[in-house]
Amino acid sequence: MKTLTEYLWFNTKNKKEFINITDEVQKVVTKSGIKEGFVLVSAMHITAGVFVNDEEEGIKSDLMEWAEVIAPFRKDYKHHRTGESNADAHLKSILFHHQVIVPVTKGELDLGPWQQIFYAEFDGQRRKRLIIKVMGG
Amino acid sequence: MKTLTEYLWFNTKNKKEFINITDEVQKVVTKSGIKEGFVLVSAMHITAGVFVNDEEEGIKSDLMEWAEVIAPFRKDYKHHRTGESNADAHLKSILFHHQVIVPVTKGELDLGPWQQIFYAEFDGQRRKRLIIKVMGG
Amino acid sequence: MKTLTEYLWFNTKNKKEFINITDEVQKVVTKSGIKEGFVLVSAMHITAGVFVNDEEEGIKSDLMEWAEVIAPFRKDYKHHRTGESNADAHLKSILFHHQVIVPVTKGELDLGPWQQIFYAEFDGQRRKRLIIKVMGG
Repeated sequence: MKTLTEYLWFNTKNKKEFINITDEVQKVVTKSGIKEGFVLVSAMHITAGVFVNDEEEGIKSDLMEWAEVIAPFRKDYKHHRTGESNADAHLKSILFHHQVIVPVTKGELDLGPWQQIFYAEFDGQRRKRLIIKVMGG
Repeated sequence: MKTLTEYLWFNTKNKKEFINITDEVQKVVTKSGIKEGFVLVSAMHITAGVFVNDEEEGIKSDLMEWAEVIAPFRKDYKHHRTGESNADAHLKSILFHHQVIVPVTKGELDLGPWQQIFYAEFDGQRRKRLIIKVMGG
Repeated sequence: MKTLTEYLWFNTKNKKEFINITDEVQKVVTKSGIKEGFVLVSAMHITAGVFVNDEEEGIKSDLMEWAEVIAPFRKDYKHHRTGESNADAHLKSILFHHQVIVPVTKGELDLGPWQQIFYAEFDGQRRKRLIIKVMGG
């Protein structure tokens, strides 16, 4: 059994942004030499998500608008009594989930034809981190 | 460490449908000979989900109605400018999540008494695929 | 490859409650002797969730209020024809997801600075169970 752990850093230009990280995840899998196993891709912050969906501008825009409808920015969240202003980003992180597991088969990410891996930043413009951990043989 | 990878195909009669796949997942685990480990059950399409819940007609109907309330069909999604009409299915896939990990203990799915594994089709009536990958020893 | 499986039991005072279980998960990882791997933390009931977020009273209150907005208690769910009254807890379980995978690095939970693991009880005041399963080397 082998493992490899790597971290990606982000510092997005926008407050909210989706970043396609499929190639970066594949690079870590290739570097690990693991042929059969799982790769965990997991945000290390509580105001970000990770999800698998389509690399198409329209749906990415729809997903971000939907996040705002279901988990809207509001001033009166209780979390804001601490001086924070990002409670909506916590809710969005729960809605999208903060991690995915991608199966690795014959050394490749075993994704469907349209599946791409995205980092979902909901409170950006500062340095944030994500873990990629591969385990297998 | 051992792994086994199998794929299930679906072609649902209805556009939206929940399919109980617990027995199929157990069969793959049994075939793998793995006694202790994890089995990943993951949709390979971006308009489908996988979830664990109750095999009871009422709650399955409630869940599908709730999906439509939270991630409704609408004509004016930006994704539809590509000619597609299934943006709501992408949102529903995010809401339900597209995968679960089931623990395997003594060769069996280690589920609670009411837990069953479902494939959630949100844009069916065409061939779609799911991966079941077991890893353990 | 090693594994260790443990179960936690809950019997919450309130119907709905978030319980920080980070220390319990770390204890199981330490007991396993596993240095590199994954730990699965998964509710064994269909009316509970597991999530990673912030140990801050305000956001925990915001999250519970949000759960009630998005997946409200209602009398007229179809599930209630069975005599049950907890359909909203099933929906909340889907919204929050019922499990997380935490990476284990050098024998420790590899979490970001604010990440804590919570058991989310949405239909409590009775005995319920959660599985913690570590796999690695």
